[in-house]
Amino acid sequence: MKLLDGGQAPNPRRVRIFLAEKGIEVPLEPVDMGALGHKEEVVTKHNPLQRLPVLVLDDGSALTESVAICRYFEELHPEPPLMGVDPLDRARVEMWQRRMEMNLLLFVANTFRHAHPAMATWEVPQIKEFSEANRPRAQETLRWLNEELADREFIAGDRYTIADITAMIAVDFTKPARIDIPEGLDNLMDWYGRVKARPSAKA
Amino acid sequence: MKLLDGGQAPNPRRVRIFLAEKGIEVPLEPVDMGALGHKEEVVTKHNPLQRLPVLVLDDGSALTESVAICRYFEELHPEPPLMGVDPLDRARVEMWQRRMEMNLLLFVANTFRHAHPAMATWEVPQIKEFSEANRPRAQETLRWLNEELADREFIAGDRYTIADITAMIAVDFTKPARIDIPEGLDNLMDWYGRVKARPSAKA
Repeated sequence: MKLLDGGQAPNPRRVRIFLAEKGIEVPLEPVDMGALGHKEEVVTKHNPLQRLPVLVLDDGSALTESVAICRYFEELHPEPPLMGVDPLDRARVEMWQRRMEMNLLLFVANTFRHAHPAMATWEVPQIKEFSEANRPRAQETLRWLNEELADREFIAGDRYTIADITAMIAVDFTKPARIDIPEGLDNLMDWYGRVKARPSAKA
Repeated sequence: MKLLDGGQAPNPRRVRIFLAEKGIEVPLEPVDMGALGHKEEVVTKHNPLQRLPVLVLDDGSALTESVAICRYFEELHPEPPLMGVDPLDRARVEMWQRRMEMNLLLFVANTFRHAHPAMATWEVPQIKEFSEANRPRAQETLRWLNEELADREFIAGDRYTIADITAMIAVDFTKPARIDIPEGLDNLMDWYGRVKARPSAKA
């Protein structure tokens, strides 16, 4: 198998960090998203949606969607568990992963894509008002997360999970999106320091 | 356990249809979303994000996010399988579920929420231009889906899965969103007829 990879974009990073936490090595085939390589045949033939990453399996079939790719590796290599350890725990991790995705990463991405000049050919039409509407929503989620993190070490509980990966990447992404992290979110910043200090964060 | 339910809104329907397919009965506690009941304490104490549905467990803890609730029931009651039968199949079903969610249901919901007068107090600010930008994206996904359905019976393969539930609800939702389904999508309409004919579609 090989992973068609997209560099520093959020979704390719999600999968690489997941693999690093698992200690799994998969051959990477870099695609230059800055040069719109994800719109080329090398990606499109595997994923008509022209998104990265794409896991190409040995039979030539492809798996897309970062979380689906992660789930495949979670099942093949259960240790260390990053998606829960029993039915209720797995559901809770999925709940938190989705909350971080739909209520944080998506808000940050919307803020970025609808305002940043580099996205003008990606997000057509760019709607500045929509970017501005998403910024305070992302900040509101960060404030809520700060409260949630008062009594636990990681997003979904006392164990590092895929929810931490999604949330860390969303917080990283606030910088290019020009979203200020509200002052005084000490629990959040402590958590962020913890997850950024893991070797996987550089994957 | 009990399920805080939200009537005909897409997410509450997703979970009820999933339960109907499984033949699982869970006591429902209706919440009137039209009267903004999901902003009241009965929901907020379980889900600060004020979204429905919410599964309240016997220990008083809560599970939110439709797909996470579905996964919990999938693990407790594996038959009939609605989320895949082996690691690769589970990943493929998740891929299709997510494609239907992010590239169809979300586009339809954005079209609806940013234009419909009934959503003026829900989606603040409503941005008409964003609604209009999402309509052709939803139609493009429908065209692609029509091609995909040329050689298989259901969204993720030859078996009905959670991806069909998400997609069916998205297609249902095109009507209030005032999205015309492009002419000539015969495979899509055949599939839609099949899934709408299942007793679960009325749940």
